[in-house]
Amino acid sequence: MDQLSKLKCQACDASAKLLSQDEIESLLSQVQGWEIIVDSGIKKLKCDFATKNYVKSVAFTNVIAEMAETINHHPQIILEYASVTVIWWSHNIKGLHKNDFIMAAKTSELF
Amino acid sequence: MDQLSKLKCQACDASAKLLSQDEIESLLSQVQGWEIIVDSGIKKLKCDFATKNYVKSVAFTNVIAEMAETINHHPQIILEYASVTVIWWSHNIKGLHKNDFIMAAKTSELF
Repeated sequence: MDQLSKLKCQACDASAKLLSQDEIESLLSQVQGWEIIVDSGIKKLKCDFATKNYVKSVAFTNVIAEMAETINHHPQIILEYASVTVIWWSHNIKGLHKNDFIMAAKTSELF
Repeated sequence: MDQLSKLKCQACDASAKLLSQDEIESLLSQVQGWEIIVDSGIKKLKCDFATKNYVKSVAFTNVIAEMAETINHHPQIILEYASVTVIWWSHNIKGLHKNDFIMAAKTSELF
């Protein structure tokens, strides 16, 4: 996971290529705890992070949000009392790009 | 909605009574934009708030979270690029209490 988290998330537009299933499986093995979900036909990368309480959940949400804004790639974040669920995908290409795995690795590192 | 938002959310335990369907319908008419959803058999109160961008979504999330922590009643918040979805229910009684409608009204007032 360390290597992936060190890479840069590159801006991509609608012409960027979706990852193949083989590429997804290879990258998924590098981001422990993350899983692929399919939401309205769109593959996304999801992880639940257990926290101790709401204050910790809010703090972690803000750390992720700050990174997201800096890099200009934004996840869905589900904030709950003792968990934060983070879902990455590339809106432009309606699916998964290597960027999403880089951001997942960075998110795990922030936790 | 004004009146409901002025009420206090009272701490309730597992012995508190779930609202009846009639009570739910009466309270729902007082919180514009909110809808009832059923998630794993649990009735919840949900509203999507459209925002201008991620920074605005994060800011609104923090305002709700601060209120939630002060009152010690905590919603699920789904933070996205241009929306914040807020879902209230009473964990203790696995459903809806008047508190949830009070918090919904307060949330709308904060927006």
